[in-house]
Amino acid sequence: MGKRLVVVGGDGAGMAAASIARRRDPDMEIVALEQGAWTSYSACGIPYLVGGEIDSLERLVARTPEEFRAVRIDMRTGHQVTGIDLEARTVDAHNLAHDRTYRLGFDLLHLATGAVPRRPPIPGLDGPHVHGVQTLGDARNLLADADERRPAHVVVVGSGYIGLELAEAFLQRGAAVTVVEKAPQVLGLLDADMGALVGRAMRAMGVDLRLEETLEEVGDSFVRTSMGTIPADLVVLGLGVMPNTELAASAGLDLGIHDAIVVDRRQRTSVEGVFAAGDCCQSTHIVSGRETYAPLGTVANKQGRVAGINLSGGYATFPGVAGTAVTRICRTEVGRSGLNSEEAAAAGFGFVARTIEATTHASYLPDAAPMTVKMLAERHSGRILGVQIVGGPGSAKRVDVVAAGMAAGFSVEDLMMADLGYVPPLSSTWDPVQVVARALIADL
Amino acid sequence: MGKRLVVVGGDGAGMAAASIARRRDPDMEIVALEQGAWTSYSACGIPYLVGGEIDSLERLVARTPEEFRAVRIDMRTGHQVTGIDLEARTVDAHNLAHDRTYRLGFDLLHLATGAVPRRPPIPGLDGPHVHGVQTLGDARNLLADADERRPAHVVVVGSGYIGLELAEAFLQRGAAVTVVEKAPQVLGLLDADMGALVGRAMRAMGVDLRLEETLEEVGDSFVRTSMGTIPADLVVLGLGVMPNTELAASAGLDLGIHDAIVVDRRQRTSVEGVFAAGDCCQSTHIVSGRETYAPLGTVANKQGRVAGINLSGGYATFPGVAGTAVTRICRTEVGRSGLNSEEAAAAGFGFVARTIEATTHASYLPDAAPMTVKMLAERHSGRILGVQIVGGPGSAKRVDVVAAGMAAGFSVEDLMMADLGYVPPLSSTWDPVQVVARALIADL
Repeated sequence: MGKRLVVVGGDGAGMAAASIARRRDPDMEIVALEQGAWTSYSACGIPYLVGGEIDSLERLVARTPEEFRAVRIDMRTGHQVTGIDLEARTVDAHNLAHDRTYRLGFDLLHLATGAVPRRPPIPGLDGPHVHGVQTLGDARNLLADADERRPAHVVVVGSGYIGLELAEAFLQRGAAVTVVEKAPQVLGLLDADMGALVGRAMRAMGVDLRLEETLEEVGDSFVRTSMGTIPADLVVLGLGVMPNTELAASAGLDLGIHDAIVVDRRQRTSVEGVFAAGDCCQSTHIVSGRETYAPLGTVANKQGRVAGINLSGGYATFPGVAGTAVTRICRTEVGRSGLNSEEAAAAGFGFVARTIEATTHASYLPDAAPMTVKMLAERHSGRILGVQIVGGPGSAKRVDVVAAGMAAGFSVEDLMMADLGYVPPLSSTWDPVQVVARALIADL
Repeated sequence: MGKRLVVVGGDGAGMAAASIARRRDPDMEIVALEQGAWTSYSACGIPYLVGGEIDSLERLVARTPEEFRAVRIDMRTGHQVTGIDLEARTVDAHNLAHDRTYRLGFDLLHLATGAVPRRPPIPGLDGPHVHGVQTLGDARNLLADADERRPAHVVVVGSGYIGLELAEAFLQRGAAVTVVEKAPQVLGLLDADMGALVGRAMRAMGVDLRLEETLEEVGDSFVRTSMGTIPADLVVLGLGVMPNTELAASAGLDLGIHDAIVVDRRQRTSVEGVFAAGDCCQSTHIVSGRETYAPLGTVANKQGRVAGINLSGGYATFPGVAGTAVTRICRTEVGRSGLNSEEAAAAGFGFVARTIEATTHASYLPDAAPMTVKMLAERHSGRILGVQIVGGPGSAKRVDVVAAGMAAGFSVEDLMMADLGYVPPLSSTWDPVQVVARALIADL
């Protein structure tokens, strides 16, 4: 028998590592511990389950425990890790079904404990009808509760991506939906002017959007805010997540930004032989060069892969995140990559910003839809610092070309001259991201 | 009065140059000569005009002669240039309406004479019902002819982009459409396996696709091929284009690949003070480093801009083309960038290729559509050499991120680790271009 690898967490960041380590090292013993019932699932798909586009929770599972066991990964669902001893190289695992805790030694440890929804200490916010949505277990609870209560009024607290996606999902279920956001805009990861476009789309679809309004109390059938009382049969948390790192902290691993686990380019933690990946650890931002917290499935899968290669004696590095995120909210696509204005200023960049109005494709075609693009570039150098897009179908994924360009240190001139594809039903002759890049040249 | 710039050709490559020169140098005298009636139009939009998605030819005009005149560009439509004397620095312009030729001196000359459809010497291929479609004048003739003949049977000869887009347009008009292609596949710019997917989509929509069949004669109401006779009330040329460079050749400018005008990075021809841009000139391919011919509106506009800056005393360079092209044919999106297998081999690359089957976005959502991605990477180095995509909505423009990556010399590893956007209705966790890049790593 080879070394024993213990993986804590059975979703993307954990199981990507376990899978690649399994393929690369047939002799390694791999034990994966997951407190929930499901493995390797798409948490990002939960809003479409709630909205009824997907009929079964199981459809979100990419790989079942049985599939992992079939490749000799000892996948233990329903097992919660309650302690880690980095000196003795052991974890304590609690078998939830048998209510029994046992100790498991490891040679290598991989932490993929994910994140938990932020739940501030507001009276009533721990009620049974208040749902944070992060795991498939959360989704099952939310669905069961929604089916039972058949809520006429749903309140979403905060305006992170998943909260707004769930707002739309509940509209589709026929509920009246209120979003309560204490900031003056939705989606704080966008600049205010771009966030306003998303807010407009939400209101156009019937969301009761309350900005600069603070939640003060949650009751059984209402919430109370700084502005009054709103009916609420069901409450969804949309305040973002924080890394689930209590275990790591107790064990003595170094924590960094937002208490996420500090890792190097190879996903190694501060302790030899202990790796971490995904929503529980921090990343480096390729534009700012600073540490950042990017709890996204894309990042988790990439980091998991890198960890798995390094865990099994290989060499791989995670180059960092560009801060890319895309979503579709109330039929409006939203994308961003790089730094927004606040982030660019905080990172010390002198920069210029431009916003242009374009269309998703040739404006003379009847189905062309508006598309707003904002881009930031470093003063003088013209280096692209970030992009934000809000618009019709085909808008959001346009941030990808900018993300790739930022990874290569593109200036706005480089992007403007990139050979991007054009045909009238899919683009304009100059792609909108090039139109804004071209405009920025004059401002440098 | 400043120098006099004469621009030959009133579409993108010519007028982008004229416009930017005008803005940069208010003293320059700018005369633009265009043999047709329209300026700065979207020739790529013609299939959508024929298919009925656009109701008026004028909608394809981005900027009218009057708009150019309003910014003091002496725009002369209906003027054909019949000769250039590079020694005397004059052009001969023929005013078609007045049937009068006059001589015009220049200090600076910009050639943007475009391309003409290939029309091989096949009996009958010069008939009045045989249409090459390159200019808005061609489009007017085609529309008038189609309205008059109301063709029940349309034959498209060849299978270039515009030919296939027009095949679909005539299907929408209710005609029976046959495509006659002498090669064993459509769209020769794709590898055979990828071209086969497009052929399948065409047949599924009702196109009678004849492969490995050679056109031998065009009659009034039929065409005769190597395999028999096909009814044809109207014939469309889809054999690609060749640079319109007879004037340049007579004047003594150096011609290169396919007799396109040789230019340097600043769009300067072999003669001082004479520039060229667009479909009449050649480009450098950023992947192969070789000269190539890329007659596309995107390239024309970029080159025109570069020429205009240099013409007016500035400094700008065109970095080259990546060989990017996207289209939508019979409801199927098609994209390519970089080199295909034949081009990569011809350029001397040792390479590996992979094809993967993916979906346009999360496969558990009901509207996810198949998407096939093929990628080529240089052996050992892993440098990306090219990508080809055929699939459902949202497929084609995915080549853009690869085009940007190739401009930066990305390896498949770089692309795989790029921070691309994901949300279930728009992508998979690993974007399909990353899935194929990841697969290629094992083959290097």
